[in-house]
Amino acid sequence: MSTEDRLDRQIRFILEIDRLKNVVRQNVTTARRLENSCEHSWHIAAMAMVLHEYANGKIDLCRVLKMLLIHDVVEIDAGDTYCYDQQASADQAQREQAAAERIFAMLPADQRDEMRALWEEFEQRRTPEARFAAAMDRLQPVLLNYFTQGESWRQKEVRSAQVMARNRTIGEGAARLWEYARGLIEDASRRGYVAD
Amino acid sequence: MSTEDRLDRQIRFILEIDRLKNVVRQNVTTARRLENSCEHSWHIAAMAMVLHEYANGKIDLCRVLKMLLIHDVVEIDAGDTYCYDQQASADQAQREQAAAERIFAMLPADQRDEMRALWEEFEQRRTPEARFAAAMDRLQPVLLNYFTQGESWRQKEVRSAQVMARNRTIGEGAARLWEYARGLIEDASRRGYVAD
Repeated sequence: MSTEDRLDRQIRFILEIDRLKNVVRQNVTTARRLENSCEHSWHIAAMAMVLHEYANGKIDLCRVLKMLLIHDVVEIDAGDTYCYDQQASADQAQREQAAAERIFAMLPADQRDEMRALWEEFEQRRTPEARFAAAMDRLQPVLLNYFTQGESWRQKEVRSAQVMARNRTIGEGAARLWEYARGLIEDASRRGYVAD
Repeated sequence: MSTEDRLDRQIRFILEIDRLKNVVRQNVTTARRLENSCEHSWHIAAMAMVLHEYANGKIDLCRVLKMLLIHDVVEIDAGDTYCYDQQASADQAQREQAAAERIFAMLPADQRDEMRALWEEFEQRRTPEARFAAAMDRLQPVLLNYFTQGESWRQKEVRSAQVMARNRTIGEGAARLWEYARGLIEDASRRGYVAD
């Protein structure tokens, strides 16, 4: 591959992932409007910079940042799947695998493999980095929900037990942050931000 | 400071920077709607992951990613300053310094100092990392403009010489990418995407 071809492929990928700005999520920002997946990705990467001291064990922050930056680009094809929607979640893995196949293949082979490996690592949640990255991915909507008085929990009629069950994963990446998030969810329940 | 106080400060900072999602920029996304500074920050961090091989000299990609993730948070107070608006640019530095002072001080002292140092490094463009980060920050609007047939260049009546002058900085961080960007700007001029 010539240098021109390589750079052209990289630029096409960069333009393709611009479309993540159009993928709307189910949770709101503190301004109480729906967030998109690009904004969410930025926010959780910045959160990782601030909160990495709470990771369970030593982690490579750089790999966490890379994972968080690209973990949602599959949603360009697969859409955002609402985590409390069981029907949509059923074929989510299949839709996202197909998306990863197409989107990362736009890059030169070495970068396709690197990005794909980062994405798989994030999805599998086996390494301390992936577990901490997943903790950021889940803690952020809990924060945005709690500090908007449960705006999307109430709108979607989610129940507190569902929120607890889903977010327990935070503890696998950062025990102290799960303790904190659990406290917010319990308080949200007391205040009526989320149904019992 | 107790652990509780420390985490509370970190969470307040995380909620504060959520407001970057409300800062509207002057350039459009490929979907031809105005981009916000949070989306821009995500996009250029992802670009750095893909394009770091073109940096002039060896760089620490992790520091570049950190710089890019936080470089625009000062706009929460200072607003986005359109780069071709000379009047607004006059007091930009002062407004942004005051914003950095307030926003980073929300963090515990060690993190305040770390973030502030990253932001200053980005602003001063003296290190290879800061120069490459600045190249991403400038290349991205060139790409979005070129691939939307000069949507915001035309709307803002920017001239090709201004675009050339502003973006020459790309070459200080990545000579090959400036060569590429210059080619796009020249072609944009030929096609009438930007006025002569």
